[in-house]
Amino acid sequence: MYRSNTCGDLRASHINKEVVLSGWVHKVRDKGFVIWIDLRDRYGITQLVLDQDRTAMALLEQAKELGRETVIQVKGKVIERTSKNPNIPTGDIEVLVTELQILNESILPPFTIEDDTDGGEDIRMKYRYLDIRRNPVKNNLMFRHKVTMEVRKYLSDQEFIEVETPYLIKSTPEGARDFVVPSRMNEGQFYALPQSPQTFKQLLMVGGMDKYFQIVKCFRDEDLRADRQPEFTQIDCEMAFVEQEDILNAFEGLTKHLLKEIHGIDSQDFPRITYDDAMRLYGNDKPDIRFGMEFGELNAVAQHKDFNVFNSAELVVGISVPGGASYTRKEIDRLIDWVRRPQVGAKGMVYVKCNEDGTYKSSVDKFYGQEDLAKWAEVTKAKAGDLICVLSGNTNETRAQLSALRMELAERLDLRKPDDFAPLWVVDFPLLELDEETGTYHAMHHPFTSPKPGQMELLETSPGEVKANAYDLVLNGNEIGGGSIRIHDKDIQATMFKHLGFTPEEAKAQFGFLMDAFQYGAPPHGGIAFGLDRLVSILGGQETIRDFIAFPKNNSGRDVMIDAPAPIDDEQLKELHLRLDI
Amino acid sequence: MYRSNTCGDLRASHINKEVVLSGWVHKVRDKGFVIWIDLRDRYGITQLVLDQDRTAMALLEQAKELGRETVIQVKGKVIERTSKNPNIPTGDIEVLVTELQILNESILPPFTIEDDTDGGEDIRMKYRYLDIRRNPVKNNLMFRHKVTMEVRKYLSDQEFIEVETPYLIKSTPEGARDFVVPSRMNEGQFYALPQSPQTFKQLLMVGGMDKYFQIVKCFRDEDLRADRQPEFTQIDCEMAFVEQEDILNAFEGLTKHLLKEIHGIDSQDFPRITYDDAMRLYGNDKPDIRFGMEFGELNAVAQHKDFNVFNSAELVVGISVPGGASYTRKEIDRLIDWVRRPQVGAKGMVYVKCNEDGTYKSSVDKFYGQEDLAKWAEVTKAKAGDLICVLSGNTNETRAQLSALRMELAERLDLRKPDDFAPLWVVDFPLLELDEETGTYHAMHHPFTSPKPGQMELLETSPGEVKANAYDLVLNGNEIGGGSIRIHDKDIQATMFKHLGFTPEEAKAQFGFLMDAFQYGAPPHGGIAFGLDRLVSILGGQETIRDFIAFPKNNSGRDVMIDAPAPIDDEQLKELHLRLDI
Repeated sequence: MYRSNTCGDLRASHINKEVVLSGWVHKVRDKGFVIWIDLRDRYGITQLVLDQDRTAMALLEQAKELGRETVIQVKGKVIERTSKNPNIPTGDIEVLVTELQILNESILPPFTIEDDTDGGEDIRMKYRYLDIRRNPVKNNLMFRHKVTMEVRKYLSDQEFIEVETPYLIKSTPEGARDFVVPSRMNEGQFYALPQSPQTFKQLLMVGGMDKYFQIVKCFRDEDLRADRQPEFTQIDCEMAFVEQEDILNAFEGLTKHLLKEIHGIDSQDFPRITYDDAMRLYGNDKPDIRFGMEFGELNAVAQHKDFNVFNSAELVVGISVPGGASYTRKEIDRLIDWVRRPQVGAKGMVYVKCNEDGTYKSSVDKFYGQEDLAKWAEVTKAKAGDLICVLSGNTNETRAQLSALRMELAERLDLRKPDDFAPLWVVDFPLLELDEETGTYHAMHHPFTSPKPGQMELLETSPGEVKANAYDLVLNGNEIGGGSIRIHDKDIQATMFKHLGFTPEEAKAQFGFLMDAFQYGAPPHGGIAFGLDRLVSILGGQETIRDFIAFPKNNSGRDVMIDAPAPIDDEQLKELHLRLDI
Repeated sequence: MYRSNTCGDLRASHINKEVVLSGWVHKVRDKGFVIWIDLRDRYGITQLVLDQDRTAMALLEQAKELGRETVIQVKGKVIERTSKNPNIPTGDIEVLVTELQILNESILPPFTIEDDTDGGEDIRMKYRYLDIRRNPVKNNLMFRHKVTMEVRKYLSDQEFIEVETPYLIKSTPEGARDFVVPSRMNEGQFYALPQSPQTFKQLLMVGGMDKYFQIVKCFRDEDLRADRQPEFTQIDCEMAFVEQEDILNAFEGLTKHLLKEIHGIDSQDFPRITYDDAMRLYGNDKPDIRFGMEFGELNAVAQHKDFNVFNSAELVVGISVPGGASYTRKEIDRLIDWVRRPQVGAKGMVYVKCNEDGTYKSSVDKFYGQEDLAKWAEVTKAKAGDLICVLSGNTNETRAQLSALRMELAERLDLRKPDDFAPLWVVDFPLLELDEETGTYHAMHHPFTSPKPGQMELLETSPGEVKANAYDLVLNGNEIGGGSIRIHDKDIQATMFKHLGFTPEEAKAQFGFLMDAFQYGAPPHGGIAFGLDRLVSILGGQETIRDFIAFPKNNSGRDVMIDAPAPIDDEQLKELHLRLDI
C-alpha cells in the first residue's frame, strides 16, 4: 500500500494519526535544524516536517538532498502546525516524518512546476506530462470532466440515449477536407474519419432512436487557424418529431443546467435574435451581448449631405463608446490606425465626441452641424461623454470592420467579463451562402438543413434569400452550438443536392444510403451539436481551447510531445497498396 | 408540436384527455367497421382506434390505406379499452382518432419490423436503420447506454477523471497492425489511430493525473475473426501509487456495482486463480466457472500401464460429464468425431462410463482394470452416472482440446446460463510469450508490464518463466478486462525493450517520449482496460458483440450500409502525396 491518505486529505481531526503519503516533492525549505517539504499529488499539498530534535540524523540528511519532483513515500504522524496556512485545506496540520523512501528520482524539469511557470508554450507542449502537473492545466482537465459528466447526466435524465457511431466511415467531398484511412483488406479503398456523425444521427432518427446524443471526436483536415485542432470533440444531439422550438427548449435547458451546476447561475430565458438582426446590430452572427454598443445605421441621417465618402457608401454605421469623449487626439488617432490595419481593413473612421456640455465635436464638422450630429447620437444611443465611431462602405465589409472595432473597444474597456455569461440564440440563418470566388452557392450549415416552410420556391429565383430552420447558440461572442431542422423528405433532399451542384449520380454515390433510408418512413427530425472544447473553455472563463485539451496539437497539426505524424515503414505502405508521391 | 405524449406514455389515468401522438404504423387491423392501428415509437406502442360510429368516413378510408412503417401524426381522445392488453404498459387504453396526418410514406421494408424478423443478417446490416427499429436491437443499444452511464457514474464518484486522449497519434510496430492516416500538411508522414491509449494514460500518471478513465474507441487492423471489429470501445483506466491489490479492489468494485445496478445481483468477492492453475484446471486462461467439470490430470494413474498412447503422452487429462454414463455408443462416437474435427484437433478420446452400480466400462478396458478406473473417477471427481472423457498428448494442445470439449459439453448440457454471472480474476500471467514460428519472445500483455518483484534476473535465463503483475477479469468464459502494474523505472523499461528485441535506437524512436517522461519522477502506476462491447453483450446475456453496436462492420471490415471503405478522388490522393500501388 503506497498511501493511507492523499495529499489533500488531512485535517486537524487527523492529528496524532499515523499516516503514509506518497507524492512529488514540490518544494524543500531547508532551515538547517528543520526541513519542511511540500508533498504534492493530484489532490493537494501536505507539509512534511523533519527536525533535529525529533528526526534521525540520517533521515534529515536524506531529506536535504531531495530534488524537486522526486517521487517519495513517507510515514509519519499528523501534528498540529505552529503557524497555520489558511490558503490550503491541509493548512492546519503537518506530518512529522519517521520514514522516507524514494520511489523515483527526477532530473531537473525543463520548466518550473508552478501555477506561474517560467516555461513557454512550446516547451510546455513538448513536456505536456509535466505541464499537466501544474494546477492551471490539471484544474482545466478536471473542469472538463465535470462539464461532460453534467452534460451526460442531464441528457440521460431527459431520456437521451448515447449511441456510438463509427469512426471508420466514407469520404464525402462536401464541406471540409476529410482525413482518410487506407484499407489494407480492401485494396485501393479508404475509410474517412468523421467530420461529424451527421448522417449517422439522422439514420438513428430514421431508426426510431429518438433523442440521441454522443460526446464524440470529430476530424477536419483544414489548414489550421489559431486555436483550431484537427481533432475536436462535439456534443452531438438529434431528436425526432420536433420543430425548431422543441430543440431550442431542450438545449436551452441543458445550457441553463450547466450554468447552474458549474457556476450557480440561475439563467433567464435566453434572448433570440434573427441572423439578419444580428448582422444589423452587431455586424456578426455570434454577437457578444455582455455589453451594449449596438450598431446604429446612419444612412438616413448622414447621407445626402456634402460628404462624399458617406454619400457613395452602401452603409454608414456607428457605435457609441462609453466615456470615449475623453480620449485625446492621439488616442483617437491610434484607434483610426487600428481600424486601418490590414486585418481590419477599414479605409478610415469618422468620430464624434459627445461633450459633457451637450455639444458635439466631430472629425466631419465641415459637413455636419450640431443638429445632424445630435441625430447620430440618437441613432447610436450615445450619451454625453461618449464617443461615436462611424465606418462606411460596402455593407458586409463595413459591418465586419465595425464588429472588430466593437470587440476591440470592449476588450480595452474591460467589458468582456469572463465570469459574466450572456447566452443567446441566433435563428433564421440563410440556407445558402454564395462562394464569391466560384459564384456558386453552398450550404451554410450543411446540405441536410431544411429551408423554412414555403421557401422552397425561392430556391429557383433568389437562392441567397432562402432562410433555413437553422440556429446557433452563442455564448459571450462564441458560437458554442449550432444545428437545424433536417430535411426528411427524399424529394426535397434530392432538390437540395441539385441546387448545391450535385449531379443525381454524385448525390447517389455519396448519400445514396441516406436517400434510401428516407424512403422507409423518416420522421421529422432535427438536432444540434456543441463544440465541447470551446464550451468548456468559455465556461471556464478562458479563451484558448488548447488549455482544456490534455494533449493538443500545434498549428501544423503536430503532436510535438510524441513527434507525430511520422514516416512509416515501407512494409506498412506496401501492405496498404500505397506509394509515396513526394 | 408533433406530439403531446409519446407512444409509451398513456395510462388509464389519461382517459378523456385529448392527445397528439406521432410514430410509425406498426400494424393495421382492419375489421371493416372498425380499424385498430398499433402506433409505435421508441417509447412503446399505443393502440389507435377508428370506427364507423365515431369516425368520419373519409378518415376511416384514409386509415385503411396506411401501409406499415408510414409515419403519421394523430389527434384524438384517450378512451378505455374494451379488451385490455396486459402485455404492454399502454394496454389499458386506446386513442380514438379524430385527425390523422401522414408525415412520411414508407415503401415496403425489405424485412419485417418485428422482434422475430424474417430478415437475414446481411439484409439487416445493409438496412441497419430499419433493424434498429426492432425491439431487440433498440433495447440492446439502450442497454449499452445504461451500462456506460453506470460505469461513468461509478468511476466519477470514486474520483476518477475522464480525460480524452488523442486519436491522431504515432504508429508503433509493436502489437497488432495500426490503421494509419496520411498527413496532408506533413508530406510523407502518417498519424496512426490508437490501438489503445496505453502510453497516453501512462503519461497522465507521470503528469499526476491519478485515477484516469476514458470510454474510448480503439482501432486494430487485424484480419477479422468472427465477432471482431476493426474499431471497438474500451473502458480504459489507470491509477498512480497502486499495487495490484489496489487495482483489483477498485475494479472488482466497479463490476459489482454493474451487476447490482443492472441485474440486482449482490456479488460475493470474486475468486482469484493464477494463470498456471487456470491452465491446469480449465485448459484456458479465461475459464467459465458457472459450472464445474474441472480437469483431472491422470498421468500418475494412467501411465506406466500397457497403453502406449498414454505412456508416450506429455499429459493425460480428463473431465467428468454429469449424467454422461447414459450416452449411447452412437452418441459417444459422435463426441469422439467432434473432438477429432480439425478445429479441435484431438487424435482420439478415451472414455469411461461410471455405471450406477459402481462398476466402470471404458474404451480401454483391455489396459485398465476397475481399480485403475476408480482412481480416474476420483481424480476427475466423477460420480456414478457420469462419463469421463480423457484426452492425451502435448500439454498445451491437449489442454486446449479438452477445454473446447468442456465448453461444448456445457453448451449441450445447458450449463452456461446467460443470467448467471460468474466473475473471477486470473492473476500472475507470464510476462513473455514464445512465438513458436520465430523462436523469439514477445510481451504477453504489452511491453510496459512490470515483472513480479525479484524476477528480473530470470529474464536472462528463463524468460518464459517470468511472471508479470498482470491480471484479467473473466466473466462467464470471456476476458472482459485485462491490465497490469506498469514499469515506471526507465532502466527497467530499457531492459525490457532489449529483451523484446528492440535496439536502443528503435526503442528511442518509438517510445522515446515515454522513456523521457520516466526521467521526471514517474510514480508507480497500473491499470486495466475493459472491452466495452464484450462486457455489454455478456451483461446483456448474449454472445454476439455486433448486436450491441449501432453500426457494426462485417468480417471484411466493410460497412455495408454506407458502402465503406470506398475509392477516393485522385485529387485527394495527390494532396496526400500518395499514389495507389495496385
